Amino acid sequence: MPMKDLKKFFHPESIAIIGASANFSSISGKPVKILLQHNFPGDIYPVNPRYEEIGGLKCYPSVLDVPGQIDLAIVAVSASRLMSIVKDCIAKKVRNLLLFSSGFAEIGESGRKIQDEVAQLAKANNIRIIGPNSAGCLNVKDSIPMSFATTLESAERFQSGNVGFVSQSGALGFSVFGLAQERDLGFTYIINTGNEMDITTLDSMEFMLEDKDTTVIAGYMEGVPDGKQLIRVAKRAKALKKPLIILKSGTSALGKEAALSHTASLAGSEETFQVIAKQYGLIMVKDIDEMIDAMQIFSGGKVAKGNRLATISNSGAEGIKMADFSEQFNIQLKPLQGETKKKVEAIIPAYGSALNPIDVTAQALTEQHIIPDTVEALAKSDEVDVIVVQTTFGGELGVQICQQIVELDKKVDKPIVVAVTGTEQHCGKGRRVLRQNGVPAYVTTYDTMVAVKHLMDAGEFHDLPIVAEERLSEDPIQLVQDEYKTHIWTEEKVKEILAQLKVKVPKSIVIRSIDDIEKHTGDLQFPLVAKVLSDEILHKTDAGGVKLDIQNVEEAKRAFHAIIESGKKYKADAQIEGVLLEEMLQEQGVEMFIGIKNDSQFGSFIVCGLGGIFIEVLKDVSIRHIPIQKEDAYSMLEELQGYPMLLGTRGQEKLDIDALAEALVSISDFVQAQNGTLQEMDINPVVVLKEGDGIIALDGLMIWDEVKSTTLV
Amino acid sequence: MPMKDLKKFFHPESIAIIGASANFSSISGKPVKILLQHNFPGDIYPVNPRYEEIGGLKCYPSVLDVPGQIDLAIVAVSASRLMSIVKDCIAKKVRNLLLFSSGFAEIGESGRKIQDEVAQLAKANNIRIIGPNSAGCLNVKDSIPMSFATTLESAERFQSGNVGFVSQSGALGFSVFGLAQERDLGFTYIINTGNEMDITTLDSMEFMLEDKDTTVIAGYMEGVPDGKQLIRVAKRAKALKKPLIILKSGTSALGKEAALSHTASLAGSEETFQVIAKQYGLIMVKDIDEMIDAMQIFSGGKVAKGNRLATISNSGAEGIKMADFSEQFNIQLKPLQGETKKKVEAIIPAYGSALNPIDVTAQALTEQHIIPDTVEALAKSDEVDVIVVQTTFGGELGVQICQQIVELDKKVDKPIVVAVTGTEQHCGKGRRVLRQNGVPAYVTTYDTMVAVKHLMDAGEFHDLPIVAEERLSEDPIQLVQDEYKTHIWTEEKVKEILAQLKVKVPKSIVIRSIDDIEKHTGDLQFPLVAKVLSDEILHKTDAGGVKLDIQNVEEAKRAFHAIIESGKKYKADAQIEGVLLEEMLQEQGVEMFIGIKNDSQFGSFIVCGLGGIFIEVLKDVSIRHIPIQKEDAYSMLEELQGYPMLLGTRGQEKLDIDALAEALVSISDFVQAQNGTLQEMDINPVVVLKEGDGIIALDGLMIWDEVKSTTLV
Repeated sequence: MPMKDLKKFFHPESIAIIGASANFSSISGKPVKILLQHNFPGDIYPVNPRYEEIGGLKCYPSVLDVPGQIDLAIVAVSASRLMSIVKDCIAKKVRNLLLFSSGFAEIGESGRKIQDEVAQLAKANNIRIIGPNSAGCLNVKDSIPMSFATTLESAERFQSGNVGFVSQSGALGFSVFGLAQERDLGFTYIINTGNEMDITTLDSMEFMLEDKDTTVIAGYMEGVPDGKQLIRVAKRAKALKKPLIILKSGTSALGKEAALSHTASLAGSEETFQVIAKQYGLIMVKDIDEMIDAMQIFSGGKVAKGNRLATISNSGAEGIKMADFSEQFNIQLKPLQGETKKKVEAIIPAYGSALNPIDVTAQALTEQHIIPDTVEALAKSDEVDVIVVQTTFGGELGVQICQQIVELDKKVDKPIVVAVTGTEQHCGKGRRVLRQNGVPAYVTTYDTMVAVKHLMDAGEFHDLPIVAEERLSEDPIQLVQDEYKTHIWTEEKVKEILAQLKVKVPKSIVIRSIDDIEKHTGDLQFPLVAKVLSDEILHKTDAGGVKLDIQNVEEAKRAFHAIIESGKKYKADAQIEGVLLEEMLQEQGVEMFIGIKNDSQFGSFIVCGLGGIFIEVLKDVSIRHIPIQKEDAYSMLEELQGYPMLLGTRGQEKLDIDALAEALVSISDFVQAQNGTLQEMDINPVVVLKEGDGIIALDGLMIWDEVKSTTLV
Repeated sequence: MPMKDLKKFFHPESIAIIGASANFSSISGKPVKILLQHNFPGDIYPVNPRYEEIGGLKCYPSVLDVPGQIDLAIVAVSASRLMSIVKDCIAKKVRNLLLFSSGFAEIGESGRKIQDEVAQLAKANNIRIIGPNSAGCLNVKDSIPMSFATTLESAERFQSGNVGFVSQSGALGFSVFGLAQERDLGFTYIINTGNEMDITTLDSMEFMLEDKDTTVIAGYMEGVPDGKQLIRVAKRAKALKKPLIILKSGTSALGKEAALSHTASLAGSEETFQVIAKQYGLIMVKDIDEMIDAMQIFSGGKVAKGNRLATISNSGAEGIKMADFSEQFNIQLKPLQGETKKKVEAIIPAYGSALNPIDVTAQALTEQHIIPDTVEALAKSDEVDVIVVQTTFGGELGVQICQQIVELDKKVDKPIVVAVTGTEQHCGKGRRVLRQNGVPAYVTTYDTMVAVKHLMDAGEFHDLPIVAEERLSEDPIQLVQDEYKTHIWTEEKVKEILAQLKVKVPKSIVIRSIDDIEKHTGDLQFPLVAKVLSDEILHKTDAGGVKLDIQNVEEAKRAFHAIIESGKKYKADAQIEGVLLEEMLQEQGVEMFIGIKNDSQFGSFIVCGLGGIFIEVLKDVSIRHIPIQKEDAYSMLEELQGYPMLLGTRGQEKLDIDALAEALVSISDFVQAQNGTLQEMDINPVVVLKEGDGIIALDGLMIWDEVKSTTLV
């Protein structure tokens, strides 16, 4: 369902609270209390047959008794009563339900059953549901609290801004909101999805992505509700250049188990999720403080145009630490040059350092102009993409310096980020002034640098060209007709495909009878390799189905006999199509493998790595979701521990990395064109020859979707 | 100099402030102001010829005019005047100087020169110095501020406790103090060493280690002033079971450069430092917040007896995250069993989870007994070593629950750690109540788990037996006499030593003339290997000095000729002692190397790894400071990426890991016995045979100290 349909959900003009209580300290009492407290301008309809009136509002026995239209019904009744309430809502044409009730999927099978029934009924009647087991939502823009969270109770007002946040967990969601508000960080929406009977974290993100006021989106997830939707959301976020900050738990086996007992999420494979996260530019954070730090730096709205940093500090120690963190995070912190250096030198004391990190010395705490002037010089410099100021500003002077930074920040596009390292008691209100004016401000340099790294990563990712799915149609791909996909494909057919994809394979012939050998080997160059051809014998070596180093026709004939016999011995009823005779590779190279793995959640992934100890001992593989582009292919190879083998170690020649990268892309394109019908593909080994000589695939296997369940030998 | 001599430094009964100013907002004015503000009970003597009186105290033209004894002189004059001040102090018999003055080594060569001169003069007169370029010290126990730090100015009183903190940087040191005080964390001493003309961070740690009130020691360092002292300090801390928390910057090349321009530290090699830190149990933190978190958990005084954790949370999400972090940090979070499980089930709501993480549900926020009762059940359980409680406690009820946790904490030895995830505004004063009563309390679960991990690591490390240096004398080691150490030792001599250390070497003879061959090869089993023997030919293969697979006497003779000739061609004046003929290894195994590297800062390290791509492509090596024990040897091997090769991959047999570990220990013991005179040792390759067959060293080289500078081929 299009997400714009959720507009009314978060912007209701009338709200019914079903099961409302006059006890304002109870979960069912708080929603009315909090709505009143924050002066909700629309209609509030408490619904509960036990009361005449709640908080001065008329209370109705049932939603059916409510006089006006109800845009949103908050439901705070026990699980057992939910079904009849939903039926009432259908009758009343309530389109949006927010369910606080617990006792559903999170308690086990019985709860799961009620939840499914309610979901079905709601879907059939076009009702959208958040929850059950939700702590509610908050439209911060219009100050509409639809929740029982104590955080909302104790807040006098909500700071609105440009961050949208969805959390599967209520406790975590409102903790983040509370902590972020204390930092003067403003939001558009807070959504707590709970058990996600209908609306999920990803649905909420889609809604917020299309909201013009929401320019930063963050989410807490215990599982991925829909893998393909996650990719769609991430792509849309990139297109809109809206950062997508994700805190995902359930990454460990134990955490996953705990997640299942919590909100019944399908946590999925962490490994594939991490690949997706990296490839589609999700900004992954490890806990809520890093999440708030990231929200804050993105909330400022500035974009890092590159990863060249300049740091200004009055503490040598913090400067050194920032240099350490830069190296650790792969951020460029280079000595200033030319004009910029001269300008900075003219501003700071002689015993300071105009290198980078820039040390403005303690003098900057008494001479008010030093820090702002240095910031301004860096802001105008084309050597620097992001500026970090670290200090311990004290008292009134500190506030004045911060005000000057705020003014500068308004005038320039370049991100200016500040660390005020100390308590408000000692450092004064400077940090608060910065935050209130949208300048990201932190306490420690580590946290600051982590946030800066996220900003730089997002800047780089948003600048990358969008993977053009159209490219596939321009460059026509061998699309295998469905009627051919009925079998496991072994070596011979796979090599046909590879040849079409311009991956070289050794010259070969298929021998079906002994007589073919004399006739056809004339075209081949000895020595040869002979291999059994059978869809039912996948482990050829185990079956005695491979003979190497065949020097002449006589040996070829003997090999043919031996292979056919071994094959029959190995598996009596195996249908043996014949024997493949191919030229044996004479050139030196490195053996690699390329594979395709179809994941039920996210679709197809391409995998590659080196053979031998690299795969067997080191498990050294590189994975990407398909389709990939050439840049991805190179980065896949570069991240392999065994990459130096391709570059040529111990004085050996460089190998044909370009050909390998091209092959990865064309295989990815081929698989993409099959539209998910290819279950697995394994090209192993593929030998990478020296630069210019290409690569050559020596064996391969493909498994099409239909035969997933066939028993293989 | 024994560190107890520093007692008077930090407990002065009389303080002179040389260069004192009546301007209380200046660096030279603040010390008097802050001493007065905190009611220093001893004598304060401002010294400055320009004033008659400062802050109501008589001001003296020179220290020589001060009537009484001066225990400590704080010096706040310019660098150029320092020398004459020091001379006055010598005359006045002032033993302790605290130098605020800057303009010394940190500004370059000219400053370094004055600094060295002052240091020399002070040393000759038994004067101890902190600084220059120090922001001062604080004796928190007795509330004696000897500093100009604004943090001290704005503090009404100092929270005393059991944490001693030394920082090379003043700004960082007093930021940490301020931030920690806000968390109700109490200290004994804060020491800022600055340029470390005399007293260093390590000296300060030695002083604090011996102070009975200081049970937790933390330090910020930009470099290691003395490698061997660091090891001594770490060993002493272990003996006293006092945790040593270290924040070290200058870990990156760039950071190191910045450190040099800052306080002129010799940052040293980061790699060797990391080895030392791990091996000697330093608690390494990445920034000041993690440092304060660690101070806090250790300050509680509880010891983790193991790494079995139980977590209690009312938020499913936080429980899942804690499970994730446990896996990540290698902390055991196992499902509760038997009695404990039953007890917890009886306490928590039925829809909660008594597995671990324990989910007490939101009910725990209304039923006050749930959390304390669960904590008590876990405290009494022998399944659990550390308990973490995460919640969002609100209001008065939250405070009451926290008070109950405080009472429980007093009654049990087991560490109880709490995360209150929210602002004080929303979660109330519970976190503060905990902290004020010594229960470590944090905000996020990530930070909590990092602190818990440090606590567990320290518990484990403090429990390890102390490396007994005496063991070496029990097990007599081949001590090489100094007179023999005058040369590079090549293969023959190294193998003699190895044989004495019970490392097998192939059977061999030394051939000095062609006639020896016929005579002596009778004892050897063909095939043989022949290798040139010369101290001046270290790269034997390059010199054509190796012949393999010699099948008979005739071939041996040809090989002898060829090697001698090639050797002379390679280096005409090389003294060739002869040719080593040895049995060629027939057994399969994995080639490894074992090396010794002498580091100027820390002494000798032992290194090992696998040959081939493991060293050449993966740089896969394991390093320990010597001496090592058997456990270290095994852990060295286990941390190698190539370790599975020793366990036997692809159905191969397990190799003789025990023999390899024994060899590492005996080589380490041998090197230790040489007392630093062995500069380098390289046993390469050493072949690890299958289990039970031992290891066999095929080549080796040793370089003794005296010949370090000899030019080698």
